[in-house]
Amino acid sequence: MASRASRLKAEAALESPWQPSRERARQREIKREAVILAAARAFRQRGYHHTSVDDLAALLNVTKPTIYHYLENKEEILFECFRTGLDQIRGAFDEIRGSRDSGLARLTAVMRRYAQAITSEFGWCMVRAEDQDLSPVMSRRINALKKEIDQGLRRLIEDGIADGSIRRCDPKITAFALAGAMNWIAHWHRADAGLTPEQIADRFIETFVNGLRPR
Amino acid sequence: MASRASRLKAEAALESPWQPSRERARQREIKREAVILAAARAFRQRGYHHTSVDDLAALLNVTKPTIYHYLENKEEILFECFRTGLDQIRGAFDEIRGSRDSGLARLTAVMRRYAQAITSEFGWCMVRAEDQDLSPVMSRRINALKKEIDQGLRRLIEDGIADGSIRRCDPKITAFALAGAMNWIAHWHRADAGLTPEQIADRFIETFVNGLRPR
Repeated sequence: MASRASRLKAEAALESPWQPSRERARQREIKREAVILAAARAFRQRGYHHTSVDDLAALLNVTKPTIYHYLENKEEILFECFRTGLDQIRGAFDEIRGSRDSGLARLTAVMRRYAQAITSEFGWCMVRAEDQDLSPVMSRRINALKKEIDQGLRRLIEDGIADGSIRRCDPKITAFALAGAMNWIAHWHRADAGLTPEQIADRFIETFVNGLRPR
Repeated sequence: MASRASRLKAEAALESPWQPSRERARQREIKREAVILAAARAFRQRGYHHTSVDDLAALLNVTKPTIYHYLENKEEILFECFRTGLDQIRGAFDEIRGSRDSGLARLTAVMRRYAQAITSEFGWCMVRAEDQDLSPVMSRRINALKKEIDQGLRRLIEDGIADGSIRRCDPKITAFALAGAMNWIAHWHRADAGLTPEQIADRFIETFVNGLRPR
């Protein structure tokens, strides 16, 4: 079919003003992501409740209906900001799947990506999304994703205890301590000041892995 | 004067319906604290914006003007909730002042009280107060108190590095990691579930002091 279409176009020497459907889908995805990135920045800078869909449309030089063409409503936009940041952490879990590294090595690999995700444009949404008086349905969707990450951290800690790379500890409380320290980065980190995300991640990992007491 | 007043009262065998001024001041303080505690609970359960001064008055069986007799406005009430929680941590700093214990020992003493403060009724207000769209003046007051605690943690870490009880590290980033892990307790802790505040504090201290890697 594709080659017949090409032949027909060539015969007619016609440039269609419509793009091929695969290219249209790609363009749609690019535009949707641009809305999400602009929203993540605006929510972080002004706060979720002080940012309207009109504001987002103005930032992107489009009308409000154009925004709604890509995302259903403001809550959906916030959820996608949250998911985009969280996908970086989920990606880290995917990468270590099947790895033969120790539990501690796999945990620090995830921590590095976790800290980087929180220092990204999406960090604010990842950490603060659930506090924005969302609908019960949306709160449940967000909590389900958070729980997945929490459970993943606990399993890595349990693996590390089992293989001897992590000291015996309470995996639940330790996972809360790790995630809490990293989530809190969103409260104090400013992209233009001080350390790079990699440096912050390295120092956090150093603190958690080696502890405060000299070895 | 006091003894003359007592004598006069005794002579007249009169019970004044007014309490002595010291007792009145004490009663005023007790009532003010009751407003602050009720507010801290209500803010945590329903959220700051979903709690009105009318709600607080109803909870305490008084009228709104009675509340305003003790605290100027809702923002002032939130600030006092924040300060009440923070005063527990400031108290910990006061206690170790002049102590000859190592930097690490003094840091863990403060961490224990810090974790307990966050698990108290005031934990939510301590951690979430600054996110509530407060006036610039109130934000500055809150930030000044937070900075005091942050600087205190950094100094203890520096002391520990100097006396050899704490491994060489970046005091600023380490203080952020400690405070972040502890502040985040307010997001997951439920008073009725699982560990006591002391147990949470002990496990956090164990994680931070000894690190994840076995010694």
